[in-house]
Amino acid sequence: MPSTLKDLGEFRLIDQLAKTVRMRPGVINGIGDDAAVLDIGHKDFLLLTTDMLVEGVHFLRNDPAIAIGHKAMACNLSDIAAMGGLPLFAVVSLGLVPALSVKFVQDLYKGMNRLAKRFHVAIVGGDTNRAQKVVINVGLLGKVEKNRVVTRSGAQKGDWIFLTGPLGRSLPSGRHLRFFPRVKEARFLVDHFQPNAMIDISDGLIADLGHILNKSGVGATLWEKFIPRTKGSSLSNAFYDGEDFELIFTLPEQKAKRLLARGPRRTMHFYPIGRIEGRPRQIFLFDRRGRKQSIDLKGFQHF
Amino acid sequence: MPSTLKDLGEFRLIDQLAKTVRMRPGVINGIGDDAAVLDIGHKDFLLLTTDMLVEGVHFLRNDPAIAIGHKAMACNLSDIAAMGGLPLFAVVSLGLVPALSVKFVQDLYKGMNRLAKRFHVAIVGGDTNRAQKVVINVGLLGKVEKNRVVTRSGAQKGDWIFLTGPLGRSLPSGRHLRFFPRVKEARFLVDHFQPNAMIDISDGLIADLGHILNKSGVGATLWEKFIPRTKGSSLSNAFYDGEDFELIFTLPEQKAKRLLARGPRRTMHFYPIGRIEGRPRQIFLFDRRGRKQSIDLKGFQHF
Repeated sequence: MPSTLKDLGEFRLIDQLAKTVRMRPGVINGIGDDAAVLDIGHKDFLLLTTDMLVEGVHFLRNDPAIAIGHKAMACNLSDIAAMGGLPLFAVVSLGLVPALSVKFVQDLYKGMNRLAKRFHVAIVGGDTNRAQKVVINVGLLGKVEKNRVVTRSGAQKGDWIFLTGPLGRSLPSGRHLRFFPRVKEARFLVDHFQPNAMIDISDGLIADLGHILNKSGVGATLWEKFIPRTKGSSLSNAFYDGEDFELIFTLPEQKAKRLLARGPRRTMHFYPIGRIEGRPRQIFLFDRRGRKQSIDLKGFQHF
Repeated sequence: MPSTLKDLGEFRLIDQLAKTVRMRPGVINGIGDDAAVLDIGHKDFLLLTTDMLVEGVHFLRNDPAIAIGHKAMACNLSDIAAMGGLPLFAVVSLGLVPALSVKFVQDLYKGMNRLAKRFHVAIVGGDTNRAQKVVINVGLLGKVEKNRVVTRSGAQKGDWIFLTGPLGRSLPSGRHLRFFPRVKEARFLVDHFQPNAMIDISDGLIADLGHILNKSGVGATLWEKFIPRTKGSSLSNAFYDGEDFELIFTLPEQKAKRLLARGPRRTMHFYPIGRIEGRPRQIFLFDRRGRKQSIDLKGFQHF
């Protein structure tokens, strides 16, 4: 029996914690998706999510504060996007070091506010505390029409698997501080195609596709040559690097063909990378020579 | 012009940040109250709040983890109570030190869940991260009937000022880890008396009463002999100690007398401590000898 967090590993920790949680009426989808799906008797479902950024883990103190603020808001917007939803209101908790400059905090807010404004989101509250390392937590409330919500658990055999952008080296390239959350793409998809399953990539393609496979009880085959990579990224970078924040989604074949038939547009890109098929929780890869190999389900672990 | 957070002080920081925030339709009350009040076109207003606890500031690592979890949930419940609302759903972000025991985290959740359950609140999502100090952030979504919401800004001349419990020495006595948020009292009050203004005491009686006075543009007179204190607390403790988490509320005289006329009950207590009167933003005290003195508006500052 592992006794420290380091021994246990994050996914198992979250699994254990989720089991201790009690449900109440109105919880359509609780812990274990990108955002909670809540029914308060309104025409839409509410979506609620939270993400914490810690200095030294998700950013460095001498990263530009505007970029840190951008990232703190962007991670949460990405979670709402992954459910097919629209973000509405944010609350911000800050742990701040007393020696920080006032400009640092103003820039943090500037970064958050600029991105929030792009998506018509208002920061409506917060909490400010003293801390020894900078910590930023954003909580985000959104909504989604009841017939448009997308979870991790709906992938079906025969679905095509898509990405919204190329993957790899988000951290070393600094893209993790600048990425643009795929809210527009997600809304386009639920408006016209209704994906069967969707998730954003925070822990790596294989790990996050793994979540869809686990929750949906299905397997996947990927084609190496179709997997879009950022400049300088290896296949391993594309598979296992964290913090890409692109969406993975699955569509039935007919809809997939219809999506691709609409041709490339300037502002939105969708890359088919494989199919839902084979044994549950197994990922196979056809490499560039057409050989089929089994893929490790390892990914970024916080501990 | 102050350039570090230490120079600036927290209230001014929050003021500055609030000014950078853009509004959007549906924000009835944004930054600067206990919780944000939001209108999404539902019959009730939504309430959204967030509170961060940082190791070494709000708790020590060897405090009982169940108590730390209790406090993390309780602070947020108290914010919803201060608006007259009902708490519904919580999301929890944790910054965890890898060397922590699994039991510590299980106990954290036990503390949060036990209290959440008392108020029919479900923890519906979370985020787990590595950190060098333990950080716990709870975001809480609640609701309140549109005609029952109470803010800081409605206090009227002639209102009586009440407390829900005795004050002082919450930190040294350990009460800050065990306090019970005044959700039931707040709901009783909005169901039967509709207070003009309400706030919970996190920064100290004088500082938090000061928020009501500022927002309402009124002043107050307090009677020393009526201010309930916890055992061993001086008047100064009752005035300036933080983290009491009792509610301050104001009622018109007629309602105040009606509240007092109902007599003491076993489970809820309401203490009249003074009146809304005099010049805006000024607090006077009648001491035990009947002398009137002006009170400093100082309180707990995080920086």
